[in-house]
Amino acid sequence: MRVLILGGDGFCGWPTSLHLSACGHDVDIVDNFARRMADVELEAGPLTPIRPLGERLAVWREVSGREIGFHRVDVAQEYELLRDLLARGRYDAVVHFAEQRAAPFSMKSPRHKRYTVDNNVNATHNLLAAIVDVGADTHVVHLGTMGVYGYGGGLSIPEGYLKIRVEDASGAEVEQEILFPASPGSVYHLTKTMDQLAFAFYNKNDAVKVTDLHQGIVWGTQTAETRLDERLINRFDYDGDYGTVLNRFLMQAAIGYPLTVHGTGGQTRAFIHIQDTVRCIQLAIEHPPSDGDRVRIFNQATETHRVIDLAELVSRQTGIDIDLVDNPRNEAPENDLVVEARGLIDLGLNPITLEHDLLNEVMDIAVRYRDRCDTDKIPARSRWTKDRHAATSGDADRAPLPA
Amino acid sequence: MRVLILGGDGFCGWPTSLHLSACGHDVDIVDNFARRMADVELEAGPLTPIRPLGERLAVWREVSGREIGFHRVDVAQEYELLRDLLARGRYDAVVHFAEQRAAPFSMKSPRHKRYTVDNNVNATHNLLAAIVDVGADTHVVHLGTMGVYGYGGGLSIPEGYLKIRVEDASGAEVEQEILFPASPGSVYHLTKTMDQLAFAFYNKNDAVKVTDLHQGIVWGTQTAETRLDERLINRFDYDGDYGTVLNRFLMQAAIGYPLTVHGTGGQTRAFIHIQDTVRCIQLAIEHPPSDGDRVRIFNQATETHRVIDLAELVSRQTGIDIDLVDNPRNEAPENDLVVEARGLIDLGLNPITLEHDLLNEVMDIAVRYRDRCDTDKIPARSRWTKDRHAATSGDADRAPLPA
Repeated sequence: MRVLILGGDGFCGWPTSLHLSACGHDVDIVDNFARRMADVELEAGPLTPIRPLGERLAVWREVSGREIGFHRVDVAQEYELLRDLLARGRYDAVVHFAEQRAAPFSMKSPRHKRYTVDNNVNATHNLLAAIVDVGADTHVVHLGTMGVYGYGGGLSIPEGYLKIRVEDASGAEVEQEILFPASPGSVYHLTKTMDQLAFAFYNKNDAVKVTDLHQGIVWGTQTAETRLDERLINRFDYDGDYGTVLNRFLMQAAIGYPLTVHGTGGQTRAFIHIQDTVRCIQLAIEHPPSDGDRVRIFNQATETHRVIDLAELVSRQTGIDIDLVDNPRNEAPENDLVVEARGLIDLGLNPITLEHDLLNEVMDIAVRYRDRCDTDKIPARSRWTKDRHAATSGDADRAPLPA
Repeated sequence: MRVLILGGDGFCGWPTSLHLSACGHDVDIVDNFARRMADVELEAGPLTPIRPLGERLAVWREVSGREIGFHRVDVAQEYELLRDLLARGRYDAVVHFAEQRAAPFSMKSPRHKRYTVDNNVNATHNLLAAIVDVGADTHVVHLGTMGVYGYGGGLSIPEGYLKIRVEDASGAEVEQEILFPASPGSVYHLTKTMDQLAFAFYNKNDAVKVTDLHQGIVWGTQTAETRLDERLINRFDYDGDYGTVLNRFLMQAAIGYPLTVHGTGGQTRAFIHIQDTVRCIQLAIEHPPSDGDRVRIFNQATETHRVIDLAELVSRQTGIDIDLVDNPRNEAPENDLVVEARGLIDLGLNPITLEHDLLNEVMDIAVRYRDRCDTDKIPARSRWTKDRHAATSGDADRAPLPA
């Protein structure tokens, strides 16, 4: 199949591009290097020595004999370039990773909030408008987030749609199925709930085919393809903005830095390994929705854990202590989380769950590159509200909000 | 109270500004003249001879002895100007009309779709981010639309929140109250459903006070204040993009142009007179939500009618025929609509309903200015989908989609 990957240079986009290429699909990447620019702004690069995209693509050609195309387009800003690419490329699927994806980054300052909204909402809408504009029958595979659901409000989280009973206008009780009520916990998550509305509208009005993959927190770094050559290595983020929780713990353990747990650690979250991420996207692409189907939603998460349990697991394995610090987020201190996630398994996913081997593999990466770590970048400095900022601003290890 | 009105030069914004000023509030207007620029683009000005804003404000000073301030700011683009204005102005309330408000305009072309999303979503988000940024306790009064509900899907439409029964994670049936499931019918309506999510997030995370007024279709032109001097006259739009249905019928009757009904006319819609619009906004401002309240949602609509019934009413009164034409919109041909709208009445609204006197008043305006009418601008030329465009593109009285 012909596949275009928006954001194909990022943490999920790069291994997805390689995996789909390895599976025999014809892959083109679009990227504007926004993620690498955020590294520059945050003065916090990935732990792993990622190579420039041009070198990555040349190495892939050398290693696999396969070509991946590249187009430098800002999807949120350069509509005409995107449209022309879609018209020329006749893609069967577009995988849409072209969004600012860190909740803490989205809450750092008004500028970061505004960038996240402007970029993410316009990127998604430009893609949908362009597909209609060129009259393409292209399947959109979008990376959503489990965070669109909030933490379920006491309900088991279904795959996108919730069965409800309500009174109709005549007073009779009727059953309906609705998009699960959105409950975003950050501006980043807010944009993903807005995306859902855009998908629903373009699906209804223009019959655009969409699969929205509500992904849990990704852990791990390498996939079968990124491991083939050190120059293909995936990015590994450990900083307070882009580092995801389990990877951050493993990294902290590798350098002997106490495992920072926000609040009580009673937050329950859904997880997925990066190798499963790329496999899920392959499954979604190779099994598109049928004509006339509503937006298809899968929960792309394979297990749930409490944050404190993960910290204790890593602590037991490594002997590194746990450090409970104030929670910068405005969220419930504890929550349960029950997630339904049959759709991708029914398509053939065989989930990777937390195993010591895999934890050790991530630790190996962390140990191998630990000299590249800047420990100043580990603490989360973004605060969800002014109150939370004020409560911690006397604390020497936390910087003020940027202007 | 000190009140800032974003979009205070527009069809609802201008009479609202005058009304609040007449009520003794200190009013400042922000506008970027986007609505007047759309007139230029569409080559379709209002039927009424509206004056430049500077002249309007000078006349108001002359007539009322009261001052209304003006700041030329693009709310979606010029964040710093907006923020500084909010910091200096210490407003009790901001009324937010700064959005592209025509569904047909939002569907004309990819450019119009993209402008509507970019302008509306960023305008709303900039306002919310700026209020948090400056630490203001400013009440946001937003003009939403009844269109966020779709047409209710067989349910009676509540004021924003729907009581549902669902199974919780343990399988027990529980009652919850959720935002009514969004069902937008155009890109314009889509942006208003996105706005709702932004309000809910900023209300939850930062305790921003918000009243969202889901307005029906506005009819009428003049209010007590705009009638005081011809130079204060409100805009009256009759073109296929910005003309609202009842005003369009009255205008067509005034010039002897058959009343164009889209589809069967079986669509039921909610309506409100412009005099009630300004009164509702006054009531919302003068009765703000309390600290800690969730987003307050009122349905700002006073009656519902089927489009064909309105056409027949006008036809009977005037002897002008009805012309059934293809529906450019992608919507159900017929729908019922049951709307709950107690909130504003409980605050003191005494609704104006369709009366012949008022219809005659609008007709008088239409007759007085009919020489200014360009009948070429009456037909709706915007098509919701390519199919609907193709089905009508051979029709000589309809222009192709603009590039």
